[in-house]
Amino acid sequence: MILEKINNPKDIKKLSLSEKNILADEIRERILDIVSKNGGHLASNLGIVELTIALLSAFSLPKDKIIWDVGHQCYPFKLLTGRNELFPSLRKIDGLAGFPRTEESIYDLFDTGHSSTSISLALGLARARDLNKTNEKIIAVIGDGALTGGLAMEALNDAGVSKTNLIVLLNDNTMSISKNSGGMSKLLAHMRTQRLYVKLNNNTKNIINKIPFIGKYIYNFIRWIKRHIKGLFIANMYFENIGFTYLGPIDGHDINELENILKRASNIKGPILIHVITKKGKGYIKAENSPSIYHAVGPFDLEKGIIETKKEDYSNIMGEELVKIAKDNKKIVAITAAMEDGVGLSLFKKKYPNRFFDVEIAEEHAITLAAGLAKGGMIPVVPIYSCFLQRAYDEIIHDVALNDLHVVFLIDRAGITGNDGTTHQGILDLSYLNTIPNLTIMAPYNYNELRKMLKFAINYSHPIAIRYPKGKENLLIQSHNPIILGKCDIMEEGDSVTIIAIGKMVEKAYNITQRLKKENIHAELINLRFLKPLDVETIKKSFNKTQKIVTIEDNVVTGLGSTIKRYFDTSHVLSLGYPEEYITHGKVDEIEKRYKLDEESIYNDIIKFLNKR
Amino acid sequence: MILEKINNPKDIKKLSLSEKNILADEIRERILDIVSKNGGHLASNLGIVELTIALLSAFSLPKDKIIWDVGHQCYPFKLLTGRNELFPSLRKIDGLAGFPRTEESIYDLFDTGHSSTSISLALGLARARDLNKTNEKIIAVIGDGALTGGLAMEALNDAGVSKTNLIVLLNDNTMSISKNSGGMSKLLAHMRTQRLYVKLNNNTKNIINKIPFIGKYIYNFIRWIKRHIKGLFIANMYFENIGFTYLGPIDGHDINELENILKRASNIKGPILIHVITKKGKGYIKAENSPSIYHAVGPFDLEKGIIETKKEDYSNIMGEELVKIAKDNKKIVAITAAMEDGVGLSLFKKKYPNRFFDVEIAEEHAITLAAGLAKGGMIPVVPIYSCFLQRAYDEIIHDVALNDLHVVFLIDRAGITGNDGTTHQGILDLSYLNTIPNLTIMAPYNYNELRKMLKFAINYSHPIAIRYPKGKENLLIQSHNPIILGKCDIMEEGDSVTIIAIGKMVEKAYNITQRLKKENIHAELINLRFLKPLDVETIKKSFNKTQKIVTIEDNVVTGLGSTIKRYFDTSHVLSLGYPEEYITHGKVDEIEKRYKLDEESIYNDIIKFLNKR
Repeated sequence: MILEKINNPKDIKKLSLSEKNILADEIRERILDIVSKNGGHLASNLGIVELTIALLSAFSLPKDKIIWDVGHQCYPFKLLTGRNELFPSLRKIDGLAGFPRTEESIYDLFDTGHSSTSISLALGLARARDLNKTNEKIIAVIGDGALTGGLAMEALNDAGVSKTNLIVLLNDNTMSISKNSGGMSKLLAHMRTQRLYVKLNNNTKNIINKIPFIGKYIYNFIRWIKRHIKGLFIANMYFENIGFTYLGPIDGHDINELENILKRASNIKGPILIHVITKKGKGYIKAENSPSIYHAVGPFDLEKGIIETKKEDYSNIMGEELVKIAKDNKKIVAITAAMEDGVGLSLFKKKYPNRFFDVEIAEEHAITLAAGLAKGGMIPVVPIYSCFLQRAYDEIIHDVALNDLHVVFLIDRAGITGNDGTTHQGILDLSYLNTIPNLTIMAPYNYNELRKMLKFAINYSHPIAIRYPKGKENLLIQSHNPIILGKCDIMEEGDSVTIIAIGKMVEKAYNITQRLKKENIHAELINLRFLKPLDVETIKKSFNKTQKIVTIEDNVVTGLGSTIKRYFDTSHVLSLGYPEEYITHGKVDEIEKRYKLDEESIYNDIIKFLNKR
Repeated sequence: MILEKINNPKDIKKLSLSEKNILADEIRERILDIVSKNGGHLASNLGIVELTIALLSAFSLPKDKIIWDVGHQCYPFKLLTGRNELFPSLRKIDGLAGFPRTEESIYDLFDTGHSSTSISLALGLARARDLNKTNEKIIAVIGDGALTGGLAMEALNDAGVSKTNLIVLLNDNTMSISKNSGGMSKLLAHMRTQRLYVKLNNNTKNIINKIPFIGKYIYNFIRWIKRHIKGLFIANMYFENIGFTYLGPIDGHDINELENILKRASNIKGPILIHVITKKGKGYIKAENSPSIYHAVGPFDLEKGIIETKKEDYSNIMGEELVKIAKDNKKIVAITAAMEDGVGLSLFKKKYPNRFFDVEIAEEHAITLAAGLAKGGMIPVVPIYSCFLQRAYDEIIHDVALNDLHVVFLIDRAGITGNDGTTHQGILDLSYLNTIPNLTIMAPYNYNELRKMLKFAINYSHPIAIRYPKGKENLLIQSHNPIILGKCDIMEEGDSVTIIAIGKMVEKAYNITQRLKKENIHAELINLRFLKPLDVETIKKSFNKTQKIVTIEDNVVTGLGSTIKRYFDTSHVLSLGYPEEYITHGKVDEIEKRYKLDEESIYNDIIKFLNKR
């Protein structure tokens, strides 16, 4: 095994081309083996094997710096930077993370997980290098999907005129998670038909005019051509025009060609964009054929591949219900930021293609577009993962809430999401959404309540958000109380303690309530339903009986916990939730245990709280 | 006066070209008259007079829809849509707003004030129109400055492939507030040299190849040309390649030409970009020559013009101090998002051009670039207005705080900023910054404390924010206690009540404390200094004496108020701050009075609170 002998990137430089190709095969095998067991990001990592080898060959790490945009494609990089042995712990608690993590390795420069940040980070490193007067190379590797994020385009705009040495390596696999289809991908599609060239001269107009006798004719002829013939050969001008030297497109699975172009790029001054074409899922035919399905996977059988079954989880329940409601309500439109399948909108797209908009990785635009649609009389429903909605905080405020427009925010993957770790936990949304004036915030405890809340939200005519977790419902007990604006639902009556739980934590609270009953402690269980407007009246009535409140949330305690303390004396309130920290990866129940938010720990904390008083 | 006879846009259609030109003069006069008295946005409004007239002539409002990006250039539009009479109330409390406001007029479609939202909003309206099967025209008017915002580029990407009828009118004045210099403006500079054309055919390659005999030779010749000659005629291809029909560039002060191109555009299907060149400040020579100075102005003498004096305010005190510190500390770099002068960085730029980065209107990139610079060993200082920093909420979390990088956030224009109104009040930052794990948050009460805090922040090695208000210091009393992490400063000792104030509200609290003393009420005055980490220990000691806490903040009460209630019984705490609303325009002291945050109201509230207990 060559892979086992690679202790650090220097070892790769010693390999022959054929050894490197064998190494590529070994890396693929290793990734397929572990990811099929642990789950993780598959297709993108299979697609970037040769490119990673070529980068580590052509450059000198750790002196030179590579930044992986998003970071889900870092598995080959981890394998080649001393983490092959630890690789079986991938995405497990206390094991290797599925994204770059600075605490793991000096080769990981930033903890990342959100999209479109790499060019800004690389430009920062490059400018720091210039000021430090050192000469390391800085490379940002960014997919064509991430390039549609506004942050990346802002960074290109700045980098293009920076005159600093910087390589942006565009890993073009024509995909984000879903298939790309926007203007940028149209532009890239043009470029893929181009041949390799190196820029010779910017100031060519003058040169032509200086050609004796026929210069002016050539000039006029080009002028004529240009007026009548457009869209030919010229798409790559975009990067050139904003200041980059464009190299490519080039086959991203040809190590030799890749190394050549990377070395060539090292000798060119200023910002360079190298356009590399790769195939997502490369080397595992099932993934090559269905890269979306194999983008992020759970454990699966390598031989049989992933057998697509109808998924049953909050996302898909939402999707199904939305399809039903949208049948009669033609005003409903749905928007996704490159997450059609993840947020459960595939069926909606199929049924109502005209009312479905995939804006690609562009959460900000998703929200402001929704504001426009709402103003035009539509009812936009926008499911976005909690951690990614952060990107659109200003747009929620400025374009939707301030304008009092009827946009339905569906905050998917709220709370602890598990193995993707710090950057993907959705434990801040109750806190940050709560800071927004004129936004209603709800959370259901099971599928049925989600269905009811979705209907409520669609019939409400102001900005409104529903947050729900990753995965399945657990609590099957049904409440028959209708959803009423700002009203909570008392699920158990009692006078020993008021337990206020929100969203998925209602399940734990319910089970604990049943357990407490056996100890003759009668808790009043409030399913909060609305974080905002808060049902202060009902909670006050309950508090008057019990004089004790316990809050339980799948968020940092500055969400529900702090909100309750605005109205009730802190010495009478026990707030249970996550500390104000970034929470690592692991299974959801492992993390809950670690942070004492599993049923047993919460039960014990409540008992202690009751005994103390 | 023609202007006085324009009651609504229909009246403009009846005018002859020469009357429209007279109208343009009258509008300029009116704007100069009122803005020189009331203050406001000048140069951009003078630049857009003819364009506004042409738009209202060529289209049929209110059926057709115009969206003004940012919205500071809406004065001519307000004058021509029934608000000429009210115009003298511009930016005054209960008067006309300086930005589009839906409550003022059916012609204002959205309340706006932040940059780069118009294309998304317009695309939303256009898609809604298509679903509604109506046929109104939708026009987004966006400056070249706002086009550098990521949100706008995300929207272009989506709109380009939307196939919907939509006009993006690019108002290219080569400026945002400062001069533009990024890649996009480089690209636009190319385009300005182009001649008008209308796209004939996309599928020209095939056509050429079908030309008998010489088709292939032309093809090869173009190919040759293309390889050897670049940068000619082809910059406008960017918009074409992402799916827009490009028209322009065209003189934005020629009403006739403008109307022609707008009418022409009405007959073209799909998304269209019209490139219009205007001159900021047009018609007032002083503003034409110094558009930055005349971008946003206070009252001034029209004859003499604005006499530039050295401004003394928080922004400039920060700038001066930063220049001093940066003299010896070569690691300090400064970043601005097109606000060099506004945030007080002009001197820094002059002294240390290599360490100064203007990223244009791109708050997200500003923050992530800072993360990169910090990782590279620099100490990035990033002054941004409170209301605009919202745009980078995710970047503060994901790129800076999670990565524990030493970035110094300077939150300028925090608190009520006054006449720009809802979109520009900085009253949410204490709330939203407080939700971010691993971020330290400070606020000074006068210049000297700002200077000390700036030094502290630069010597600290983690993410840290300082927020300070627009305008001047008021409280000259100096504290000699050094800044210590997480420690507040007791400015007055007492045992009747604990008054905790933050930032500029310390002044009011101090004056009130002196007044209370005369009533024999001895307040303990705590200048909080750090919202996070909170000095719970010191506050507890004080509370043990007084049993009563009053908090005073220039933020919604979910900032300091709610934070204190996490630790102290709500029944013992009086939280004074703004309600969870969007606060209108007016002078700062007028707004303070209206929301009972002037000294007198606070004093009375404290007396009531003390009597109640």
